[in-house]
Amino acid sequence: MFDPAEHSHRRRNPLTGQWVLVSPHRAKRPWQGQQEAAALDSAPSYDPACYLCAGNARVTGERNPQYDGTFVFTNDFAALMKEVPDAPPSDDPLFEAMPARGTSRVICFSPDHAKTLPELPVEAIERVVDTWCEETETLGARYAWVQVFENKGAVMGCSNPHPHGQVWTCEHLPNEASAEDAHQRDYFATHARPLLLDYAQREADSKERVVVSTDHWLAVVPYWATWPFETLLMPRTALQCMPQLDREQRRDLASALKELTSRYDNLFRCSFPYSMGWHGAPFNGSDARPWQLHAHFYPPLLRSATVRKFMVGFEMLAEAQRDLTPEQAAAQLRGVSPVHYSLAP
Amino acid sequence: MFDPAEHSHRRRNPLTGQWVLVSPHRAKRPWQGQQEAAALDSAPSYDPACYLCAGNARVTGERNPQYDGTFVFTNDFAALMKEVPDAPPSDDPLFEAMPARGTSRVICFSPDHAKTLPELPVEAIERVVDTWCEETETLGARYAWVQVFENKGAVMGCSNPHPHGQVWTCEHLPNEASAEDAHQRDYFATHARPLLLDYAQREADSKERVVVSTDHWLAVVPYWATWPFETLLMPRTALQCMPQLDREQRRDLASALKELTSRYDNLFRCSFPYSMGWHGAPFNGSDARPWQLHAHFYPPLLRSATVRKFMVGFEMLAEAQRDLTPEQAAAQLRGVSPVHYSLAP
Ligand SMILES: O=P(O)(O)O[C@H]1O[C@H](CO)[C@@H](O)[C@H](O)[C@H]1O
Ligand SMILES: O=P(O)(O)O[C@H]1O[C@H](CO)[C@@H](O)[C@H](O)[C@H]1O
Repeated sequence: MFDPAEHSHRRRNPLTGQWVLVSPHRAKRPWQGQQEAAALDSAPSYDPACYLCAGNARVTGERNPQYDGTFVFTNDFAALMKEVPDAPPSDDPLFEAMPARGTSRVICFSPDHAKTLPELPVEAIERVVDTWCEETETLGARYAWVQVFENKGAVMGCSNPHPHGQVWTCEHLPNEASAEDAHQRDYFATHARPLLLDYAQREADSKERVVVSTDHWLAVVPYWATWPFETLLMPRTALQCMPQLDREQRRDLASALKELTSRYDNLFRCSFPYSMGWHGAPFNGSDARPWQLHAHFYPPLLRSATVRKFMVGFEMLAEAQRDLTPEQAAAQLRGVSPVHYSLAP
Repeated sequence: MFDPAEHSHRRRNPLTGQWVLVSPHRAKRPWQGQQEAAALDSAPSYDPACYLCAGNARVTGERNPQYDGTFVFTNDFAALMKEVPDAPPSDDPLFEAMPARGTSRVICFSPDHAKTLPELPVEAIERVVDTWCEETETLGARYAWVQVFENKGAVMGCSNPHPHGQVWTCEHLPNEASAEDAHQRDYFATHARPLLLDYAQREADSKERVVVSTDHWLAVVPYWATWPFETLLMPRTALQCMPQLDREQRRDLASALKELTSRYDNLFRCSFPYSMGWHGAPFNGSDARPWQLHAHFYPPLLRSATVRKFMVGFEMLAEAQRDLTPEQAAAQLRGVSPVHYSLAP
């Protein structure tokens, strides 16, 4: 008899159409490879050398205000430029290029250099949510895609421990956005309901992969998770993009985020690294009804605070592969306290 | 005027249909993030604790033979199982799964624990090429996809510095294979020539992105490269898969590999980490003519032996992004000696 907790198998991500190889038996493999430095909380609340702390100067010489709450500025080394001349149209299928126009902004979550999301009070997280919504609304007026994200931890390429995220925007739909757009539209054309709204209901009923559940929000290790402890955070009702969130949904989202990131930190008792970000209906004038707002959390750790999953070799050349089932990962995240270890009595 | 060396733009990978965001101006950005340990050559030729050295015992208790040349065995912790019962057919678009059957083998390149590919004599590299061809032929008789690859360096998840690669096989076409299959077939249907054969000729003529050029082989930083110093190694004539290579093409490939990996090591004077692997026509009975054999090299380093590119945040959630143009990367790789620094007089 086929047993998904025992046998190698593939699962399909309905948002992107990509498959993931699940090898449940592989967690038994001994690890002699690279160990990461465990990220522990030891930073001071203010660092005179940090270019994100309030009152400090940045590379450009500009000085940050004495902010309280969040603080947003345009990245001094943006990957996307606002002004790019039109390129000569290329119809050569082997050398196809197009201009990429956009901007890139930095969002400081709090003036406190030492406090990551789960360590902030719910009210402070609500201000981060508000900032995400505002930035998305403002930038969505000009750009088709607004990508809000956070890289957390040195292992995720974050070059400054001061709690912050980013927003990159572009006139085009990037690869991931365009795959999710196509798959949600296909599903909607057949079922007349948003794909992720149906999915959230099925997961809420089964509970097997649920990690956090609040009045308005649900976080699950998706059936097709690629990263060991990947989660998908979704509203329980139809919501297409961030600016639509009302006060109650924002407040509740702040609680859900606090619980989810606290569970992450509690899993290996460290500041859990990840890349996270929001996907919502694009601002390109297309029908938004097939879309459901959601956040992806992609954390790299696999076995401990120092042993990560490497997506290399087979993964880069053939297909992503995971070493434990999403159901096992969800059970582990449910098994730890919802209260951050540093705040527990 | 649009200038690809100056302006942010996107380029399309015709093998996969994915785009990459090119931000040529971004290399100027200061880096204060994670530094990798530089991989230098200092290992002994024999390590009594290494489970890949000749004569040593593996986790299972089995003992490696006193091999000379290459040595191949089935992975003790294979991600794919040979025997998996049939799964109940699933037509649920939100919970789609299928069994994954296959095997996973380890290929030791040489009994010398200390010698990576560029440090081996050309004759020894030719034996590695022979082993890749044999494994592909044998396993291709049973499996639709045979993925030969090498993860090199701790930063690429390699858990043992003994020079070795792997072969993973499966009955299905994994994501990357199936994307390349579809795009090569589309191109062939329109142009009646293999996509990568046309591409190789265009690159050989232009020379702008060429890094290594031998009688039978060409290595370029592809127009659509994602990783900073990514290369694509292709035959100059129509060749669909590894087992077709004749003696002369194998010998010449060994030289090309030696030169390419020596240039990599010389770039930052370190043992250059990468994941590399071969893609060729699948063994599933489909028409092989659209396919052209090729190897991808995906190396993570960006600026120095210790500063890598992180594919995180925007890259995971939206689209891959690079900080220098493929043309600049190719010029740098052409600018260093073709002879490995440890072997130079
Ligand atoms: O099989 P290895 O070398 O122990 O493991 C390495 O390569 C595999 C195939 O690319 C990956 O799945 C692992 O994450 C990586 O650590
Ligand atoms: O902009 P940062 O934080 O300096 O840079 C980090 O995030 C970017 C966006 O995900 C990535 O392109 C970089 O590779 C990463 O180091």
